[in-house]
Amino acid sequence: MFEARLTQSAIFKKVLDAIKDLLNEASFDCSESGIQLQAMDNSHVSLVSLTLKSDGFDKYRCDRNLTMGMNLASMSKIFKCSSNDDTVTIKAQDDADTVTFMFEAKKQDKISDYEMKLMNLDQEHLGIPETEFSCVIKMPSGEFARIVKDLSQFGESIVISCTKEGVKFSTSGDIGSANVKIAQTSNFDKEEECVSIDMQEPVTLTFACQYLNSFTKATPLTPVVQLSMSDNVPLVVEYQIPDLGHLRYYLAPKIEEDEN
Amino acid sequence: MFEARLTQSAIFKKVLDAIKDLLNEASFDCSESGIQLQAMDNSHVSLVSLTLKSDGFDKYRCDRNLTMGMNLASMSKIFKCSSNDDTVTIKAQDDADTVTFMFEAKKQDKISDYEMKLMNLDQEHLGIPETEFSCVIKMPSGEFARIVKDLSQFGESIVISCTKEGVKFSTSGDIGSANVKIAQTSNFDKEEECVSIDMQEPVTLTFACQYLNSFTKATPLTPVVQLSMSDNVPLVVEYQIPDLGHLRYYLAPKIEEDEN
Amino acid sequence: MFEARLTQSAIFKKVLDAIKDLLNEASFDCSESGIQLQAMDNSHVSLVSLTLKSDGFDKYRCDRNLTMGMNLASMSKIFKCSSNDDTVTIKAQDDADTVTFMFEAKKQDKISDYEMKLMNLDQEHLGIPETEFSCVIKMPSGEFARIVKDLSQFGESIVISCTKEGVKFSTSGDIGSANVKIAQTSNFDKEEECVSIDMQEPVTLTFACQYLNSFTKATPLTPVVQLSMSDNVPLVVEYQIPDLGHLRYYLAPKIEEDEN
Repeated sequence: MFEARLTQSAIFKKVLDAIKDLLNEASFDCSESGIQLQAMDNSHVSLVSLTLKSDGFDKYRCDRNLTMGMNLASMSKIFKCSSNDDTVTIKAQDDADTVTFMFEAKKQDKISDYEMKLMNLDQEHLGIPETEFSCVIKMPSGEFARIVKDLSQFGESIVISCTKEGVKFSTSGDIGSANVKIAQTSNFDKEEECVSIDMQEPVTLTFACQYLNSFTKATPLTPVVQLSMSDNVPLVVEYQIPDLGHLRYYLAPKIEEDEN
Repeated sequence: MFEARLTQSAIFKKVLDAIKDLLNEASFDCSESGIQLQAMDNSHVSLVSLTLKSDGFDKYRCDRNLTMGMNLASMSKIFKCSSNDDTVTIKAQDDADTVTFMFEAKKQDKISDYEMKLMNLDQEHLGIPETEFSCVIKMPSGEFARIVKDLSQFGESIVISCTKEGVKFSTSGDIGSANVKIAQTSNFDKEEECVSIDMQEPVTLTFACQYLNSFTKATPLTPVVQLSMSDNVPLVVEYQIPDLGHLRYYLAPKIEEDEN
Repeated sequence: MFEARLTQSAIFKKVLDAIKDLLNEASFDCSESGIQLQAMDNSHVSLVSLTLKSDGFDKYRCDRNLTMGMNLASMSKIFKCSSNDDTVTIKAQDDADTVTFMFEAKKQDKISDYEMKLMNLDQEHLGIPETEFSCVIKMPSGEFARIVKDLSQFGESIVISCTKEGVKFSTSGDIGSANVKIAQTSNFDKEEECVSIDMQEPVTLTFACQYLNSFTKATPLTPVVQLSMSDNVPLVVEYQIPDLGHLRYYLAPKIEEDEN
C-alpha cells in the first residue's frame, strides 16, 4: 500500500504547473525514500527530474516500490479542484490500476476524493552524472523568468554569458538586438533578492528560448533559481521545493557557428 | 404608466447575468405586486422563475398590468453601461413599444438614459405546483458553484445524494470518478457558511452538469443557495434576492438505469 | 548625437499605448526643443500630434536635428520589457540607422539595452492652424473614456452637444437610443473630478466612435481630458503629459443629414 499526505495541496499544483507543459504523461516512482519522476519532454530535447523526499511529507508509507504512470493534464485537472490549503492524501493499492487523491478542507467539513486510472508507460532511466560546473548562478527566480520572457520576444535563442562580474543574457532577431546584464550582488541583506556567482571559468552558451520559458513555469515554487553551466554539458536549471525536494531541468546548449 | 426605481443597479446586473445564459429573451410581467418572469430555457429543459416584489423597490408604480418582452443580451449591454451604485429607473408608457432605463450616478452630475425596443414574445404560463420536498438543503452558494464546476470537468451529469448526515455529489467519466461530500454543520455561528439539511427521507437524483452550471451564474446574488429535491420531481435551486424577491431554477432529474 | 533620459519609463509605455492602435509606424522629430511626432492614422482619417519638451526630460542632448522612423509595435514590445520605474535612456548617433533604448532598474543592478533598426518613412507635415473654439470642455478622462465605450455598443457615431449647462453624448442603433448628460460642476473641490465648460456658442457635432475610442487609449496618461469643438472644424482631444508635453488627437466631424 502507498499513502502520502501533504497539508498544502498547493505545492502539488505548482509542481504540476511546472511540468505539464513539457510532459503529457509521466511515471512517478514511489519508494521508501520518496517520489521520483524523470522524463524527457514531449519533443525529446530537455529532461525533467523531480525528487520529493518521503520525510518532507506529513505522512508517508510505501510498503513496496511502485511505479504509477499518470496523465499530467488529468492530474492537474484534479488538483485544480482542491483549494490551496486543502490537505491532500495520495493513495494506491500495491497492484492497483487506479490512484486516489483525497482532499480535506481546513475549515469546512468537506472531503473530496478523485479516483484516476493509471497508465502503463515505457520508461527509460537516464543516468545523470554529477558534474562540477564552470559557473553556478543563483538569482531571483522571478527575475530569470522575466528576462527569458522579455528576450523571447526578439529571438529564438538566448546567449547566457557568465563572468565573475555578472551574467549577460542576449538575443537578436528581426527587430534588433537585446542585452540584459545583471551584476553580482555586493550587499547580501535579502538572500532571495541576491545574484551570486560561483565561477571556475567564464562560460558563454546558447539555449532555445522555448525550453527556458517552459522551465520558468516552476517560478511559483520558490524565490531562487540556480543555473549551472559548463561548456559542452547540459545547463541545469534547479528550483528547490522547500522542505520537500527539488525540480531540475536539463537542456543541452545549441551549437552555433557564430556563438563562439 | 409603469415606473420602478432601485438605488442599486448592480442587483439588476446580477439578475441579468444569472439568466441571460439560459434565456435569449423573456417577458417581464409587471403588475401592482411586482415584476414576474417565467420562462423555459432556450433548449426547453429547465425553467427560470424570477420574482421581484414591488415593495422591494425604492419607488414602484404600475397603473395597468404590462408585459414587456425584452432581449436579454441588449438589456444586459445597457446595464453594463451603469455603475454598480447608480440608481436605475425603469419606465414605460402603458401601450409603449419601448422601455427606458435611466441611470443616475451617486456622486456626479451624470444622467444616462437608454431607450430599448420591446419585443412581442409568445408566452406560456406554466403552473408550478407547491410541493413538499423530501430533502431541502441550504449551503453556501459559492461552495455549490465550486462543486458543480469541479465535477463538470469529469462527467456530464452529477448525482446528488442527500442523507441526514450530509450531501454527496458524484460523477464519473473517462479520467475516473469523483466524489465530494459535505457534512451538515453542527456549529451555526455564521449562518452563511452553514450546511443545513431538512430531510423527510433520503434522496438520490442525477442532473445534467450543463444546467446546474448555468444556475450557479446566480451565485453573486446571495451567499446561500437552497436545493429542494424529491423523487420524480424537478430539483428547485433557489437564490434569494435580499429585500426584493427570489430567482428559482427548476430542472428535472435524469432517468438513468445505473442511477439507483 | 542624440540622448534623452527619463526616470519613469512608464510614461513612454503609456504614450506608446495611446498611439500604437492608430499608427503602425511614425517619425519622431528630435531637435533642441524636444521630440515631436505628427501623423495621420493608418486609415488617414484622424491626426495624432505628440509634443515632448526637452526640459521635461532628466537629461536631453540633441546636437543635430534628427528624424527617427520607428515601428511602434516593435518599440512597444521593447518598452514592455522595462519595469514602470526603470530609468530609460534613448540614444542615437547622428547618422544612425538604429536607436538604442537602455533601461536601468531602480533597486537592482540590472541594465538592459535594446537596439532597434530605424525606418525611412515618408513624411508630410501638416500645418495645424491655431483656432478659437466655440466650446472647450474639460472633464475627467476616465469618464470620457467610459461614455465613449458605453455608447459605442449602440451606434457607430456619437453626437456631442455642448451648451452652458453641460454636455450631452448621444447615439442610436438597432437596439435603441442612448443619451448621457453630464452637467458643469458647481463645486470645484477636486479639480480632476470637475466638468468645466468654456463656451462662446453652443455646438452639436457628430463623430465616429471608432476614432474616439482609439483616442481614449491615452486615458492612463492624465486624469483630465480637454475637448475643443467648433462647427466645421476638427475636434481636438487633448491629454496633457505632466511636466513633459501633450498628446493631441484631431478628428473631423461627420456630416450627416439628420445631425442638426
